[in-house]
Amino acid sequence: MAEINSIIFENNMLKLIDQRKLPTIFEYFTCTNYRDVEYAIREMVVRGAPAIGATAAYGTLLLVDELIKENLTKVEFNKKIDIGLEFLNNSRPTAVNLMWAINKMKEVISTNSTKSYDDISLAVKKEAILIHKEDIETNKRMAKHGAKLINQGDTILTHCNTGALATAGYGTALGVIREAFYQEKNIFVYADETRPRLQGARLTAWELMEEGIPSKLIVDSAAATLIRDKKIDIILVGADRIALNGDSANKIGTFMLSVIAEKYNIPFYIVAPTTTIDFDIVSGGEIVIEERPSNEITIIGERVVAPAGMEVYNPAFDVTPNDLINGIVTEKGIIYPPFEKNIIKLKNNIGD
Amino acid sequence: MAEINSIIFENNMLKLIDQRKLPTIFEYFTCTNYRDVEYAIREMVVRGAPAIGATAAYGTLLLVDELIKENLTKVEFNKKIDIGLEFLNNSRPTAVNLMWAINKMKEVISTNSTKSYDDISLAVKKEAILIHKEDIETNKRMAKHGAKLINQGDTILTHCNTGALATAGYGTALGVIREAFYQEKNIFVYADETRPRLQGARLTAWELMEEGIPSKLIVDSAAATLIRDKKIDIILVGADRIALNGDSANKIGTFMLSVIAEKYNIPFYIVAPTTTIDFDIVSGGEIVIEERPSNEITIIGERVVAPAGMEVYNPAFDVTPNDLINGIVTEKGIIYPPFEKNIIKLKNNIGD
Repeated sequence: MAEINSIIFENNMLKLIDQRKLPTIFEYFTCTNYRDVEYAIREMVVRGAPAIGATAAYGTLLLVDELIKENLTKVEFNKKIDIGLEFLNNSRPTAVNLMWAINKMKEVISTNSTKSYDDISLAVKKEAILIHKEDIETNKRMAKHGAKLINQGDTILTHCNTGALATAGYGTALGVIREAFYQEKNIFVYADETRPRLQGARLTAWELMEEGIPSKLIVDSAAATLIRDKKIDIILVGADRIALNGDSANKIGTFMLSVIAEKYNIPFYIVAPTTTIDFDIVSGGEIVIEERPSNEITIIGERVVAPAGMEVYNPAFDVTPNDLINGIVTEKGIIYPPFEKNIIKLKNNIGD
Repeated sequence: MAEINSIIFENNMLKLIDQRKLPTIFEYFTCTNYRDVEYAIREMVVRGAPAIGATAAYGTLLLVDELIKENLTKVEFNKKIDIGLEFLNNSRPTAVNLMWAINKMKEVISTNSTKSYDDISLAVKKEAILIHKEDIETNKRMAKHGAKLINQGDTILTHCNTGALATAGYGTALGVIREAFYQEKNIFVYADETRPRLQGARLTAWELMEEGIPSKLIVDSAAATLIRDKKIDIILVGADRIALNGDSANKIGTFMLSVIAEKYNIPFYIVAPTTTIDFDIVSGGEIVIEERPSNEITIIGERVVAPAGMEVYNPAFDVTPNDLINGIVTEKGIIYPPFEKNIIKLKNNIGD
């Protein structure tokens, strides 16, 4: 069982596995202030919706501790908190967990606003650690639910990285795969390399190798033939934001898989914590899709792979419509269609 | 109008634009003997089914001229011709044009077998030049037929490289795009980067820039959302081998596009010369799909993008079933369903 600590907070510093450097270099990136944290999220030192959430929570703590040293009035302090959190919140637009974590932290600061700065810092720290630890627990619960979908000898297709690196630990879709492997279900995994940033090749393949899970790496567009030829039993992917009707934004390439899966009757599941559900949006059409720089496509390592001046369209995510999704695995169980009804039911259970 | 001479034969040497080095380095790779030609095809200095055919024709000439210098008996000569052509033929398995060109050359050698070596060489040279020139003419005729499918203001999606580089000149699917552009149809092109070898990014983008055709580069898996959102009017791709029933093998990723196109009612056309049709096979199931080395996926330039020891599945092609193809554009016109009937009709017209 491989222990991968993607996020470590110690000595008032946040250490993140630098995911830009894997699989060849394993190295922690150290954030000593909230600007470092914003940089780490924006530049994808850390990525994966749940990991971004936990990272932002610790970023809030670094912000609070920095502002405390400035001897501000409470009014000034609160104003600067708002500006700092807005700055963190804008680091990436699509993952709802970022917004969710920052709102949680805002609440904690607000609830404790009449207390001393040291007490505010303590409360914020407690909440950040809670978010971090709870995400791992959430993943493990999700993995238990999801593993029920996996039969002995199943071959699983996954996209992007949804493992310990994408979360506070264990993983979402890759957490289910991990759990099924621990349950000795004799699984085999095909991992999409996931262009442009190759999270599948660099990160998922690395986690699969660390665990010793039998697997092969493929280019994203090779998945279609495997699906048609029934060489895939089930597709498991993560999500960055889920609308009330079940439409799910995830890494570019996910939607393509869902269409092929539907045509050839292969089950397609989203695995994501309930924090990924955005109860404020009705459908996927409302999800902002981040467009990232063209050099993510035109340059790989130091190699220029497209002619100078070539224009690029580089959306980081796409939206899979709810009718192509068989179920959404959460820590509270598997949500099945009709999603709208069942997500609202879940919302009422959460009491959110 | 950009003149791109992908294949030049002069001074008894075959010069091929080294497609491994584009788009950053424009350089010819020189073949002085048929072993160089086999290397150039296998290592993809030259690629694209029609270009491979013309290259192999010149390779046959280099083989003949080398054997002539060995003062062999006719029996020995013919035996060594067979061995040499078999060696060339095995350089890549999927493209039928390679087999087709070599069979053509075999015929010429056989027809002229009683003549002097110099006359055999002359006949072989004449045939190689004919195959080369005819491919360009074929492409231009194909382009004229295909351009009728393109409306004013259309946005076209294409995959891999099917341009002047993939052929003796002009191109198949990219030839149609070129023609529509020359006809001032105000087109826009989305080019799939085409993993793993990035022929779209490196070669198609380079040709589009050379021509000044408005275009954008995308990762392969970004095409699906563009198709769903009706941002694509038509999809044009090439083929490496077409079965009697219309099933078409083409670069990995083509099949995926055909499934998305069907679901969202976007026309999907194959553009390929009739030499790409393999009249000996009934359906796509009989097409041998080449599996290429894993380092095509795990290493890009000098950058290692997957962990050491990770296993890889790297099929170079996939097969698009005939029911997902709207039509096959050839130099003899556009073949529509029912493909089996219409391809047989075409075969009888060719008298092949």
